[in-house]
Amino acid sequence: MTVSVILSNKGHNVFTVDPDEKVEAVAQLLAGKRIGAVLATSGDGKVVGIVSERDLIRAIAEKGSSALKRPISDFMTTSVVTCQESDSIALLMEKMTTGKFRHLPVLKNGKLDGIISIGDVVKQRIEETEFEANAMREYISTG
Amino acid sequence: MTVSVILSNKGHNVFTVDPDEKVEAVAQLLAGKRIGAVLATSGDGKVVGIVSERDLIRAIAEKGSSALKRPISDFMTTSVVTCQESDSIALLMEKMTTGKFRHLPVLKNGKLDGIISIGDVVKQRIEETEFEANAMREYISTG
Repeated sequence: MTVSVILSNKGHNVFTVDPDEKVEAVAQLLAGKRIGAVLATSGDGKVVGIVSERDLIRAIAEKGSSALKRPISDFMTTSVVTCQESDSIALLMEKMTTGKFRHLPVLKNGKLDGIISIGDVVKQRIEETEFEANAMREYISTG
Repeated sequence: MTVSVILSNKGHNVFTVDPDEKVEAVAQLLAGKRIGAVLATSGDGKVVGIVSERDLIRAIAEKGSSALKRPISDFMTTSVVTCQESDSIALLMEKMTTGKFRHLPVLKNGKLDGIISIGDVVKQRIEETEFEANAMREYISTG
């Protein structure tokens, strides 16, 4: 089971923002779209960072209300770990656990092609388990 | 595999706050402890709510900087879904996926006994898979 299966279910949509966007506006985007992270891209579409709910909480913890008017570039993670469509779900789990993050952007030929959350991974794992159980039941009933 | 296995690895520690605690102080607690949620308890230790990073982001998105001085009781989730030590990891995955949340408090005889995050679930799943692979290798090499 690979990343491409998750993307075919959830779609390739990714929200991006300018690195100069303010913390408050990004909080509004995350809450409005009910998502946990957005990617910061430069003018040419290159990924320059990722901003999660956790990064914004850290900003507020450190700077208080003044954080809200600061650009997200002050708080985003710039060393962005990515994955490929052909990567296995098991590899994604490893990357998320080791790096202690919950979102992995998907790159295709070097370009942004989707984003996978830890929630997507768990949802996929449930569907796999149900699929296996159904296959097993069918095997037994026709065996 | 059950919740008790995860708790025996990560411990039973749970951070709690008063429902009157301010949003800014809770952001500092989450960031300082590197956790994603805390439980709000009343004077007698009863769980009255759960506050996640997502709840605080929503508070800021809706109220701006004035949210930081508001009590978390204004933004916490009061219908707290919980689990038991005897629950399976599969059931936890189902609850988290269906409810779209990432933290499940564990109750034992009606009292708070730990908290399981979606990250804990995924970490446990990896360890299970490695255990199964090792058992398989041993079976083959001694078969």
